[in-house]
Amino acid sequence: MSCINGKDRINDQKNNKRCKQNVMASNNYADYLQLDKLLDSQTMLSMQNGKVSYDEHLFIVTHQGNQAYELWFKQILFEMDIVCKLLSGNLWNNEQEMFNILKRLGRISSIIKLLLEHFGVLETMTPYDFAEFRDYLKPASGFQSLQFRMIESKLGLKRENRVNCCKSYTDCFNGKKYDELERASAEPSLFSLVCHWLESIPTLKDNIVWDQYRRAADNWLERSTESDISCLEKRRKLMDTVFKCDQHKRLVDQGNRKFSHMALKGAIIVYAYRHEKGYTLANKILESLVDIDTLLSKWRYSHFVMVHKMIGSFSSGTGGTTGSEYLRSTLCDSYRIFIDLVNLPALIVPAIYVPPLIKH
Amino acid sequence: MSCINGKDRINDQKNNKRCKQNVMASNNYADYLQLDKLLDSQTMLSMQNGKVSYDEHLFIVTHQGNQAYELWFKQILFEMDIVCKLLSGNLWNNEQEMFNILKRLGRISSIIKLLLEHFGVLETMTPYDFAEFRDYLKPASGFQSLQFRMIESKLGLKRENRVNCCKSYTDCFNGKKYDELERASAEPSLFSLVCHWLESIPTLKDNIVWDQYRRAADNWLERSTESDISCLEKRRKLMDTVFKCDQHKRLVDQGNRKFSHMALKGAIIVYAYRHEKGYTLANKILESLVDIDTLLSKWRYSHFVMVHKMIGSFSSGTGGTTGSEYLRSTLCDSYRIFIDLVNLPALIVPAIYVPPLIKH
Amino acid sequence: MSCINGKDRINDQKNNKRCKQNVMASNNYADYLQLDKLLDSQTMLSMQNGKVSYDEHLFIVTHQGNQAYELWFKQILFEMDIVCKLLSGNLWNNEQEMFNILKRLGRISSIIKLLLEHFGVLETMTPYDFAEFRDYLKPASGFQSLQFRMIESKLGLKRENRVNCCKSYTDCFNGKKYDELERASAEPSLFSLVCHWLESIPTLKDNIVWDQYRRAADNWLERSTESDISCLEKRRKLMDTVFKCDQHKRLVDQGNRKFSHMALKGAIIVYAYRHEKGYTLANKILESLVDIDTLLSKWRYSHFVMVHKMIGSFSSGTGGTTGSEYLRSTLCDSYRIFIDLVNLPALIVPAIYVPPLIKH
Amino acid sequence: MSCINGKDRINDQKNNKRCKQNVMASNNYADYLQLDKLLDSQTMLSMQNGKVSYDEHLFIVTHQGNQAYELWFKQILFEMDIVCKLLSGNLWNNEQEMFNILKRLGRISSIIKLLLEHFGVLETMTPYDFAEFRDYLKPASGFQSLQFRMIESKLGLKRENRVNCCKSYTDCFNGKKYDELERASAEPSLFSLVCHWLESIPTLKDNIVWDQYRRAADNWLERSTESDISCLEKRRKLMDTVFKCDQHKRLVDQGNRKFSHMALKGAIIVYAYRHEKGYTLANKILESLVDIDTLLSKWRYSHFVMVHKMIGSFSSGTGGTTGSEYLRSTLCDSYRIFIDLVNLPALIVPAIYVPPLIKH
Repeated sequence: MSCINGKDRINDQKNNKRCKQNVMASNNYADYLQLDKLLDSQTMLSMQNGKVSYDEHLFIVTHQGNQAYELWFKQILFEMDIVCKLLSGNLWNNEQEMFNILKRLGRISSIIKLLLEHFGVLETMTPYDFAEFRDYLKPASGFQSLQFRMIESKLGLKRENRVNCCKSYTDCFNGKKYDELERASAEPSLFSLVCHWLESIPTLKDNIVWDQYRRAADNWLERSTESDISCLEKRRKLMDTVFKCDQHKRLVDQGNRKFSHMALKGAIIVYAYRHEKGYTLANKILESLVDIDTLLSKWRYSHFVMVHKMIGSFSSGTGGTTGSEYLRSTLCDSYRIFIDLVNLPALIVPAIYVPPLIKH
Repeated sequence: MSCINGKDRINDQKNNKRCKQNVMASNNYADYLQLDKLLDSQTMLSMQNGKVSYDEHLFIVTHQGNQAYELWFKQILFEMDIVCKLLSGNLWNNEQEMFNILKRLGRISSIIKLLLEHFGVLETMTPYDFAEFRDYLKPASGFQSLQFRMIESKLGLKRENRVNCCKSYTDCFNGKKYDELERASAEPSLFSLVCHWLESIPTLKDNIVWDQYRRAADNWLERSTESDISCLEKRRKLMDTVFKCDQHKRLVDQGNRKFSHMALKGAIIVYAYRHEKGYTLANKILESLVDIDTLLSKWRYSHFVMVHKMIGSFSSGTGGTTGSEYLRSTLCDSYRIFIDLVNLPALIVPAIYVPPLIKH
Repeated sequence: MSCINGKDRINDQKNNKRCKQNVMASNNYADYLQLDKLLDSQTMLSMQNGKVSYDEHLFIVTHQGNQAYELWFKQILFEMDIVCKLLSGNLWNNEQEMFNILKRLGRISSIIKLLLEHFGVLETMTPYDFAEFRDYLKPASGFQSLQFRMIESKLGLKRENRVNCCKSYTDCFNGKKYDELERASAEPSLFSLVCHWLESIPTLKDNIVWDQYRRAADNWLERSTESDISCLEKRRKLMDTVFKCDQHKRLVDQGNRKFSHMALKGAIIVYAYRHEKGYTLANKILESLVDIDTLLSKWRYSHFVMVHKMIGSFSSGTGGTTGSEYLRSTLCDSYRIFIDLVNLPALIVPAIYVPPLIKH
Repeated sequence: MSCINGKDRINDQKNNKRCKQNVMASNNYADYLQLDKLLDSQTMLSMQNGKVSYDEHLFIVTHQGNQAYELWFKQILFEMDIVCKLLSGNLWNNEQEMFNILKRLGRISSIIKLLLEHFGVLETMTPYDFAEFRDYLKPASGFQSLQFRMIESKLGLKRENRVNCCKSYTDCFNGKKYDELERASAEPSLFSLVCHWLESIPTLKDNIVWDQYRRAADNWLERSTESDISCLEKRRKLMDTVFKCDQHKRLVDQGNRKFSHMALKGAIIVYAYRHEKGYTLANKILESLVDIDTLLSKWRYSHFVMVHKMIGSFSSGTGGTTGSEYLRSTLCDSYRIFIDLVNLPALIVPAIYVPPLIKH
């Protein structure tokens, strides 16, 4: 946008305006929001005969909650698509685009925070009212939501990391929807784009900075005033998983790390030099990814807790699984896409040991 | 429901079940939520040609926010209808229905609290991004929302208490929508039903309890240790507006009170005897109405503040009105339906002066 | 209070007033809040010499957060003490006290909700700023908070259900504090008082209602339209854990149930007859206990997630435990005091099978 | 910090560490938080004699709420001091310090958001419980809080803009406290430092960029497709208040604008060129100031609404003021420090008319 001159932009804008005027001709709030379509998607059951039964009210509350979730899921997907597009470019030279990414990621966080608040309304329904039609109404859950699965896939959740019952997408989806999900899984995910971006950090084009950082780590471990030997030994082993490629790979093979070794090195450099020109924004992007990962994990937990409360547990001593047990199983670290970034603080050499960044 | 016996209920339930199975035959989350219809109501503008321009993103955020608002407005209207139906019955003898009302009012409060949180997402849009298409896009506001007007009308906001530009509903609505709004305004509002319910409080069928209460008030004013004479005088005058019907009426005529004198007396009795059997739930209903009134007022304020921030102010010294000035004008007490209940604590005789309730 | 007459109460109040006037003589906000003492408890480190180092700022944020937590923990303990006192009386005949309990439990929930919001401020600190003084500053955690341990103990968390490192209270506490904790553990907990209250439900004084309920359950299982045999079998087994005392006891021995059999029966009766006079409030009390349990579990999760984010994880593949792993371990069901009430919905016979309550 | 070499920093850190170890020698959470002092500041009234009266519970809830407020006010003051210090330097060349300011302002916003949530707990107290000791207990309010007045003063609220009853600080404060407040008012406020910073924007050292911007504005007004003549006229007048110094000054004299003309020009340039290198962060700082202003205004409103609800209103028709009326009066624009920034979007020329920034 910055390359076109003022006049062009004015003309461009005029065309744009004309096109918009068609859409918004009536300047009518209801048309503009397509409210007829939106609100009509809630006409339901026997309401038409004037008699609204008590259970249908409950039906409506969850319904509303789930529709609201879907609206916001759509917005999340929208923002994620833009972030992915921006990450595909050459970010390291483009501050404006990094600011743009930050804004989008921040908005996604805001939306997930809002989704967390939705439980307050849903929980005005009590389990015992809900229990009365347990036989008909399966608890509506993100589990069956195409959009939620797409968010997970686009974030970078791999099919093989999903819990068993969701490994094949045919559990809930077929036809056009199955295809849509397949397609989303095939595209480069946010995770892989972040990985690739971190691998391409200019500072790591040669080994100078990384070698210097490694020496800083050695220095730190030597000077450590840690009195507990076993604790020091543990830290030493941990640092080996950073500096020795084969040890890193072993963790990856065990499913305990997700980043490539190069991406991990990139992330460490960004954190270590976060006060240096050029890395501050990169660091903020990593922080925002951790925020999203963390908030999503809170949302999963709140979702699990709500469903558990609503349907109770069949499993107490008698075995078997329920919706809430499925949700509980997705709380594991393998569902946390950016878990490597979350775990990272334990791997960072304290700033005082790290020499200033050598500019190339 | 309590009058039919177990067997009948089982049969009833079976029929009910069959009918539901038709609707939910596919047991499919997406069909069930009618997501195609819902999410389709957001396809927009030039997105079809693959080029999504920056401003359209903004468009989408407000859009999503407004659609989410409308979903929840619909739920509020739904709950209000049930509350109004229940209030039309003989509540004073029916604890279960009072509990039911409390639950519904509580849910409305929860929803408004959730709506308050929506601003967090909307405010991820900055005024300056927004400003760029100020010429095309009028800020979407509750102002033009049929459902929000209906909520106001059903609560009891009278046409004559609306600010000028909204007095006639023809400002934004016509045809079917105008009629719908007219019809909602013609039905008994929540305010009038609450009023009627308070007027019918059994304790006020004769004057015994009220006279006793009036003597308690006299006693209080006499024994007052208030050293400040002007303050005592003010309180005396205030109590006159409770006990002298003509003084109450004058306040009503000035627009400073809304309840009938009898309803005010009912509310006072409920508060004064809120620890007595039968009045505890009534008191909780009044508290819930105050909560809704208060939360709605906070929502209006947050809405005003957001719109002010988004479009700035044209009015600084140059006169004129804008969307935000309209919103500011609705913050006045005449828009607060249950303002009499909010003001009431200043009119209540302290408990220690009030003799126990004489049971009839 | 309701037994004394008006005059006595007025005198009583006057004395009360005189005493208060002494305390509040100065009518001074700062004295009244004892702000000197409060705010002085934050003077710290090298601030006195005018030089505030960057890390000390971080120090202060967590500090403030933890002090705020402690203030509210104190309030929770205060409300819990009142609830315990009220539960010790004969509640089944006393609606006013049940309302009072509900109010207190509701306030505890409100406080925990507020505590959940505190993470928003604490998380304005980034892990990498925090990492720089990892060597000095152990992450301040509820783990070491006497008041939080007391809340857990008073709720009913038994020493043997705590994770190993906290089984003996000598891990963090000694002297006066150890004694205080011991004393709190020795008093009847909220859990045991609730248990005792449910055991004393009048309806279970003989077997009439319970036998009727058991027949309703048989009826339900017989008429079940559940097509999946294994699922029906599972439900049958589950119901046996309700009706057969030895099966219930086995679950208790395995640590999968906490209530006594009689208390479980009481809870089921309250839920099953929650629309009957006398049980509605009891039911609401149980719901409030579930709310507190649920919110506390969310707080634990948020706390775990924050600490994990702050200090990362040493445990990825190298073994060992950290603060965050301790917090993760407290997320198990054995820390959830009212887990039986949370699990209960799966054990309830649908309302249509349950005959009306026989009044004794 | 960036200028000292690694070795020095390590030594520095060691000293620092030693000093901290003294403070935290015991590594004891309770000592570290000085909990004895903190929690002791809440021992109150007749609790010592074992009898806790109902009203004292209420007393404690507000008390706790107010103490929590004061804790967080202290943190706000702390962060404001740092921001003021950073603003005094030459910010335009220092990205790291601008990031630092942003972080601090963001934290202040987070804290105010948290303070907004406190009302949820305070409102678990009902007005009628509260009413019973209206005679003794004045509603505790920010009104009497020294720290809140200091926040207002440090933000830039001038004595002459306060409502009458607070113009002289002697209303609530004397001695040491009065002096402290006087001193805070005498120091350069956040407002004046922001003003000074905007005035020193390098781009305005000569008139080239500003003249170009003025021509863009003329161009915009000429090409306007606004069909409504009166509306266009209004906008023209509004733009005159930007470009004609005497018209700006008139608004300042009327109390309708607060910035100097030069600061206003600076803010406009920052907004207009917010996508240009160097102005993005400045723009984000202005946005953060608007956020704080907005959130504080919401806090004032929520505070007013709560106090109104608690004590009702004496003023309905009988005149007089109450605590809530004072709070209502502080909702006016003169209490909003950065109102000029809030109003600004209406004064900005759309981006398409603005030519690229000429680099000097």
